[in-house]
Amino acid sequence: MRILGIDPGLVRIGWGAVEIEGNRISHVENGSCASKGEDLATRLLSLFEQLTEVTNRLQPDSAAVEQTFVNKDGAVTLKLGQARAVAMLVPAIAGLEVGEYAPNTVKKTVVGVGHAQKQQVEHMVKMQLPRVRIDGPDAADALAIALCHAHHMRAASNRAAALARAAA
Amino acid sequence: MRILGIDPGLVRIGWGAVEIEGNRISHVENGSCASKGEDLATRLLSLFEQLTEVTNRLQPDSAAVEQTFVNKDGAVTLKLGQARAVAMLVPAIAGLEVGEYAPNTVKKTVVGVGHAQKQQVEHMVKMQLPRVRIDGPDAADALAIALCHAHHMRAASNRAAALARAAA
Repeated sequence: MRILGIDPGLVRIGWGAVEIEGNRISHVENGSCASKGEDLATRLLSLFEQLTEVTNRLQPDSAAVEQTFVNKDGAVTLKLGQARAVAMLVPAIAGLEVGEYAPNTVKKTVVGVGHAQKQQVEHMVKMQLPRVRIDGPDAADALAIALCHAHHMRAASNRAAALARAAA
Repeated sequence: MRILGIDPGLVRIGWGAVEIEGNRISHVENGSCASKGEDLATRLLSLFEQLTEVTNRLQPDSAAVEQTFVNKDGAVTLKLGQARAVAMLVPAIAGLEVGEYAPNTVKKTVVGVGHAQKQQVEHMVKMQLPRVRIDGPDAADALAIALCHAHHMRAASNRAAALARAAA
């Protein structure tokens, strides 16, 4: 099963895909999309098109997006809402279910604590995906989200298997 | 020339289309899309699909969206940002330029004053588009945005014609 993690940011949308095979999770690809253009419609369209290309190419089975912080600066929050809409729409259009995780849940799952620093998250992503080359901080966050979703899905499938064994 | 006005709201996206023929502006159609579904991705997808259907059916030549207020409530601002992204993405994907107008500009163009009440805006929309039946307040706002864009485009085209005559 292939999982696409997406980190919607103000200027860039990070993405990262991992593959679950049994108990093994491996890296597929990661990167980030930068918005291009002068006006808002063009910038949103450029992010939408780039993320659509990634989704069509990698053919994930499931997607996950980090829940967006409400910023003190209203203008920043508005832009984050716009980026988040692109990040959720693209996998939804592709027919995928889109998991949402709070930033603290992502950190707790990947690092073990909810208040981890960005560098710790990147370090643990590298530990869990040996030989990965990470395309910047947005892609690192996206891989952390993908790992978080992978761990949650694997745990849910293990629970289901245990219940099936108990019922047999 | 056909213009589609779009009003992105928290729960509904209003839309309204007008036609410019010479100096005459007439009503084409108006309505609103309500978001459906439990989770955010599904709700955004439902708005995206409904607005795409409207855009494909009405085949506008240009689109306009009202600029979104930054609300004091960050969670509201985040949702408005998401709705705005859908409102701008759909016409951009259809290859249209998307005009943006501040709420005060819309009111000033349609009513004559920037601080007009919602009822005044709806009243003036009805005056300018005789026999129009308006599908609720979001559609009324969308028609006001379409009228604002129509007036601005007609004024620009009249200025260009006057300059061409002066140069001849």
